[in-house]
Amino acid sequence: MTQRFNEYETEVLKAIRPSESEKAEILSLADELVSAVNESGIAKGMVTGSVARDTWISGDRDLDIFMLFSPELTPEELEEKGLSLAKSIAAAFGGDYVEKYAQHPYLNAAIRGFDVDLVPCYAVEDASKIKSAVDRTPFHTRYMRGRIADKTDDVRLLKMFSKACGVYGSDQMTGGFAGYLCEIFICYYGSFRGCLKAAAEDWHTGLVIDLEKHQAKEFDDPLTVIDPTDPRRNVAASLTQTRMSEFCEFARGYLKNPSKEFFVRKTALPITKDELAARLNERGTFLYGIVFKTPGIIPDVIVPQLKRSEVSIAALLERHGFCINRFDSYMGDDNCIILFEMLTESLPAVEKRIGPPVWESENSERFIAKHLGKTMSGPYIRDSRYYVEVKRRYPTVMSLFKSRDFIECGLGKHVKNSVVKEYGVFTGAECHRDEFAAFLGEFFEEKSPLVKILERN
Amino acid sequence: MTQRFNEYETEVLKAIRPSESEKAEILSLADELVSAVNESGIAKGMVTGSVARDTWISGDRDLDIFMLFSPELTPEELEEKGLSLAKSIAAAFGGDYVEKYAQHPYLNAAIRGFDVDLVPCYAVEDASKIKSAVDRTPFHTRYMRGRIADKTDDVRLLKMFSKACGVYGSDQMTGGFAGYLCEIFICYYGSFRGCLKAAAEDWHTGLVIDLEKHQAKEFDDPLTVIDPTDPRRNVAASLTQTRMSEFCEFARGYLKNPSKEFFVRKTALPITKDELAARLNERGTFLYGIVFKTPGIIPDVIVPQLKRSEVSIAALLERHGFCINRFDSYMGDDNCIILFEMLTESLPAVEKRIGPPVWESENSERFIAKHLGKTMSGPYIRDSRYYVEVKRRYPTVMSLFKSRDFIECGLGKHVKNSVVKEYGVFTGAECHRDEFAAFLGEFFEEKSPLVKILERN
Repeated sequence: MTQRFNEYETEVLKAIRPSESEKAEILSLADELVSAVNESGIAKGMVTGSVARDTWISGDRDLDIFMLFSPELTPEELEEKGLSLAKSIAAAFGGDYVEKYAQHPYLNAAIRGFDVDLVPCYAVEDASKIKSAVDRTPFHTRYMRGRIADKTDDVRLLKMFSKACGVYGSDQMTGGFAGYLCEIFICYYGSFRGCLKAAAEDWHTGLVIDLEKHQAKEFDDPLTVIDPTDPRRNVAASLTQTRMSEFCEFARGYLKNPSKEFFVRKTALPITKDELAARLNERGTFLYGIVFKTPGIIPDVIVPQLKRSEVSIAALLERHGFCINRFDSYMGDDNCIILFEMLTESLPAVEKRIGPPVWESENSERFIAKHLGKTMSGPYIRDSRYYVEVKRRYPTVMSLFKSRDFIECGLGKHVKNSVVKEYGVFTGAECHRDEFAAFLGEFFEEKSPLVKILERN
Repeated sequence: MTQRFNEYETEVLKAIRPSESEKAEILSLADELVSAVNESGIAKGMVTGSVARDTWISGDRDLDIFMLFSPELTPEELEEKGLSLAKSIAAAFGGDYVEKYAQHPYLNAAIRGFDVDLVPCYAVEDASKIKSAVDRTPFHTRYMRGRIADKTDDVRLLKMFSKACGVYGSDQMTGGFAGYLCEIFICYYGSFRGCLKAAAEDWHTGLVIDLEKHQAKEFDDPLTVIDPTDPRRNVAASLTQTRMSEFCEFARGYLKNPSKEFFVRKTALPITKDELAARLNERGTFLYGIVFKTPGIIPDVIVPQLKRSEVSIAALLERHGFCINRFDSYMGDDNCIILFEMLTESLPAVEKRIGPPVWESENSERFIAKHLGKTMSGPYIRDSRYYVEVKRRYPTVMSLFKSRDFIECGLGKHVKNSVVKEYGVFTGAECHRDEFAAFLGEFFEEKSPLVKILERN
């Protein structure tokens, strides 16, 4: 049998496994908070998340305390009683707090240097009866706790490894693994190395992992991981195809040439305006940045709208004949940017338009009547269709971005609202501002995770 | 019942129906030539073509005399005896002559102001036993003669109408109707107007017309017209989709608003160099003409090779990221030109290349090793594939046209042979020369047949 952890993993574990004193500190605070909930008499306290499963990375200061209320309360009652209890507990522990909102509202409090979430939920009998997504969390904790007790180091390694390759985080911007997903992988594959081996050799688009063999729904996602506590839920729903592929590549690279480098995240360096100008000069491309105020809505709502907007704008550009090299978007604290690197910035005056098939006599007649005498060429016939060549509506990318067609091309709702108020279109190095410097650096240094490691060495 | 011919048709027929004296002149020459063949004792003479069927247009001076030899001769004997008999007849009638070649050699002679083809062939028993394509011609004449005797005016109108819309001629450059095909249409639809009505209302890609209901082979052509004398032959094989569509359009236009205009061919005016420069300036496009010596081979061999070369070059341009508006080619007496009207003449230095899927580990490793440290961006992963962005190989259309990749892109055999010897790439108005002036005029005045009529009025 091969050694469970190699020299690099052993060394990494020393750094990321919490010390006994670190454990004692957080667990004792968790106990006190749970007791405080229980003492209220109206809810039951429960530690959830990575602290409950002993899978957190040393130095993390996040603590999740769930407050389980009777399912007989109305949502309004749950909200009112839940927040009121959370506030009184936060106050009792001397913590500053702020109300936040996922599906229910919850309280985020700073207590003894920890970042504590106090989350009210329903204490439902089984996972199939949950009333909101947060009700599911206690089931995850109960399911996982016993099953990974002897594999917490494997989970920690997998989390650290995923972080290093940029695949950790189930938020929409990352599109990677949730902590719970990492735990399921370790349960399923038995070890950190087993999970990497599977990813390196067997993973492919459409793979299904079903720990409890109880799948009750099909998913069209790159990877399907059926929630062991809910046969109709894909835990990997927010994983993108790109992140999944990057993880496989990284796993393959590590198994071939393991090193500590694979546990260290390389973040892109911010690019300066002069560097950006030099890169564009070298590449010869035309950069356009559409910039507008960041809507005051949580990132997990805005980021998918930015992505959808990118795709809509790309389709608009291509419909009008402009060639794109690459595009991306970024949500800053103050402003968002949707970035297009173009191969063409302008096109000739003439534009070919496709008409109806010759066999459709009424459409053909309308098409001829509409264009007769007003074209640069045509109407003419090629194969079985009519064509005309007319004066191009948008001869430059800029004229398209400044048009009504741009506003109406299918931007996400909040993106459109913000754009309608005000937006700027910047070109070349003028797209640069401090807020976007790291994003632009990443855009122009585009490398796969393994390549970043290889180029470092 | 509607009148057989309307006022326009009646007027056109007056002009295109040969007079009695014209008929007498050509038929008497035909008789004399047939007698001369018969008198040789080694072959039987036969008038074929439109003169035999009384379907020629007044003013046409073409006469086809077939000389039917015993099928027991070898091809060499047929050639020797056939040409020798043809030469002695041409000499006896005082005609200059020249040897030509279709599948067999034949003699083309100028006799009493007529353009006479003297064609040796085998007198086979039935059409299924033909030894070469020319043996089929006597069967066409025998089949058609009695069947269209009372519809020769309909055939003449259809030929004239097809000529006017540019659809008459089964040569490769035209890709239109043969005279025999026009006769089959009249047989099948019963009249000129019946044929137009069918084309206007019912014709579509994939239509099959089978007069004898004996089709014995499937064809992948736009229109299939089974030869009544050969169940395995498509008489419309050389008809292009574009010509077929144009005929339908023209038929529709005529049935809606009949006029004499529909029987008058509008040929494109030659364009001058200054006019060409002005058109290009207005259109804003980039014109490239690849010019080389016309190979000394018959047009029906060269023209398809030019068409194939166009498509190969277009694919090459698109593979390298250049956008085409339109292309065409022309075979002049001295030079050929392959013409590309481009929307882009140059592209940025950076070029994106697609790599293998991430799941293919060996290919992925090779791809990374090949590009590591040598790219402008990447290798990076998008969805499930690798990409790199490298320095573009062909940053201009001109650099591509001057490359080895151009020569090797899949030009037709004789085209390539000529190009390899010498070719020039001209841009903009420099593509102009007198030999190409009419072709360039047509290229830039591109209109469907009906639109040409409509714009005239």
